[in-house]
Amino acid sequence: MENYMALTVQLNHVTPEIQQALQVELEKVRQTIQHFSKSKFSGIKEIVNDVIDLNGKMLRPTLTILSAHFGEYDSEKVVKLAASIEMLHMATLIHDDIIDDSKLRRNKESTQSKYGKDMAVYAGDYLLSKSLSMLNGKEYDADHMIKLAKAIELICESELLQFHSKFKYMTVKNYLRVVSGKTAALFAVSMYAGASESNCSEGLSKQLGKIGYELGVAFQIIDDILDYSDDQELVGKSTRNDLKKGYYTLPVIYAFQGESEKVLNHSEAELMKLVEKNNGIEKARVLARKYTKRAFKRIDSLPEGNYKEALESLAKALLDRKY
Amino acid sequence: MENYMALTVQLNHVTPEIQQALQVELEKVRQTIQHFSKSKFSGIKEIVNDVIDLNGKMLRPTLTILSAHFGEYDSEKVVKLAASIEMLHMATLIHDDIIDDSKLRRNKESTQSKYGKDMAVYAGDYLLSKSLSMLNGKEYDADHMIKLAKAIELICESELLQFHSKFKYMTVKNYLRVVSGKTAALFAVSMYAGASESNCSEGLSKQLGKIGYELGVAFQIIDDILDYSDDQELVGKSTRNDLKKGYYTLPVIYAFQGESEKVLNHSEAELMKLVEKNNGIEKARVLARKYTKRAFKRIDSLPEGNYKEALESLAKALLDRKY
Repeated sequence: MENYMALTVQLNHVTPEIQQALQVELEKVRQTIQHFSKSKFSGIKEIVNDVIDLNGKMLRPTLTILSAHFGEYDSEKVVKLAASIEMLHMATLIHDDIIDDSKLRRNKESTQSKYGKDMAVYAGDYLLSKSLSMLNGKEYDADHMIKLAKAIELICESELLQFHSKFKYMTVKNYLRVVSGKTAALFAVSMYAGASESNCSEGLSKQLGKIGYELGVAFQIIDDILDYSDDQELVGKSTRNDLKKGYYTLPVIYAFQGESEKVLNHSEAELMKLVEKNNGIEKARVLARKYTKRAFKRIDSLPEGNYKEALESLAKALLDRKY
Repeated sequence: MENYMALTVQLNHVTPEIQQALQVELEKVRQTIQHFSKSKFSGIKEIVNDVIDLNGKMLRPTLTILSAHFGEYDSEKVVKLAASIEMLHMATLIHDDIIDDSKLRRNKESTQSKYGKDMAVYAGDYLLSKSLSMLNGKEYDADHMIKLAKAIELICESELLQFHSKFKYMTVKNYLRVVSGKTAALFAVSMYAGASESNCSEGLSKQLGKIGYELGVAFQIIDDILDYSDDQELVGKSTRNDLKKGYYTLPVIYAFQGESEKVLNHSEAELMKLVEKNNGIEKARVLARKYTKRAFKRIDSLPEGNYKEALESLAKALLDRKY
């Protein structure tokens, strides 16, 4: 729970009761993930346990739980849905590591460096399938399963777009396309499905889905900004990874706006200097804030209650986070 | 259609009309796969087209189509289901290649060697998700989607079991566990879902599913035997791959039965000699035949008709194939 605590510290305006209730639900999510990732092949369970520990935030389950509270909250049903979504996310993290050849994730060895490429490929596929198959058609709306599968498709397309833009200039528009597909789409489904499975009206569910989307865009922009941080220990993964790998995210894009052809002619150190000189990070923060503000405005229109405050507080925490 | 033709040549007892009808349906499956693998990211489409061409047999779609003919055959519905199953299979092939570092599949370069590991990971994930999301809950029974997702889980577990038994002795029982998970389970779903979606009774659907299972076991045993063939050109992929990689399949297992500890002390050439000396291949053929016979017995009990004959003929072709 340690990592989750680290996040909730910033949920300032939330009563201790709500914080406590959220933690209880998230612990159930964790247990459900462990239950459903049981496999005859013991290696898979080991990896899953590892990835759960690695997971710092349980953000998507938190969004699903908060969103479900706007309807008729059924703990068992919501927890299983939240677990499914987190497993889907874990699967994509495991597969990302294969491509990134990343040695470190959340201060621990990545799956592929610890267990090998074979385990990483199949454990990812296993989790991905399990995340869908565990939502059986009698309990859950089949459309939600399909929405989750479509979120995976968007994630794949966006990761590929990003990968093939390596060491190339990207427009802000294309950057937002990547961010929207690889992060915001699943944030959106997390909130939409949480609400919809709790019998919220279609209108309210969609509204919550849009909040998820906007928070997702803001979250990913901040994530990209944090990669420019000097404090690897605090962020919990190797920093400057994006620049090193040729992923030119928003701070670089802003630093170079209009002068795309020059990107290729700079070393990592020169790029860092330009980002600083042209306020790339500050400009990126402005865009993240814009998306958070949109989310705030939407949250404003939601029915009053404790969970509305929790959602607001979470949105603030996501924008202000330093890790 | 060339590769498919190569298979149907052996469907001796099938009327030209049925053969023609099957080919028309399989061409529709091909088009449906292309339609549903359209992606904003053009790279994915390119890979998919490549993998379709590489695909030699379209066996799973053939099984789905044949099985569906035992019920009320609805071409559009069956074709889409068959396409979904083939896409799932294609996804697993693409991911297998990442682990195998295999340069050649069906006489062509493998996805990962042609496009890189990144494309192989995400294109596989994309196809896998798409294969499930295309079967929407209004048209198809959500349980079938879940059965497909579970087939993926079994495939992953079996591939991992196989991978971690590399260069080790495996019991026939464990070998059959691998074969059953990595091939027979999906063959079973192909036939079960084809029948069930065509309003066959649950009893008949299950019977057809079991035929799929038995044919799947026989098919995989034969596939493993063909790896011992000297004719790489004919088989359409590099042969002796399994031995080289330390996958000790049925012919080796039979050659060593009871003397497990000796497996590790032999070179590839020595293993080949032992397989020959102890009739490993012939013994493996006997087991394949046993499973085919079980399937025949079950096929016997099916309602009479053209498609029963086609199924029988296909079962024979699978057992007798040389590639």
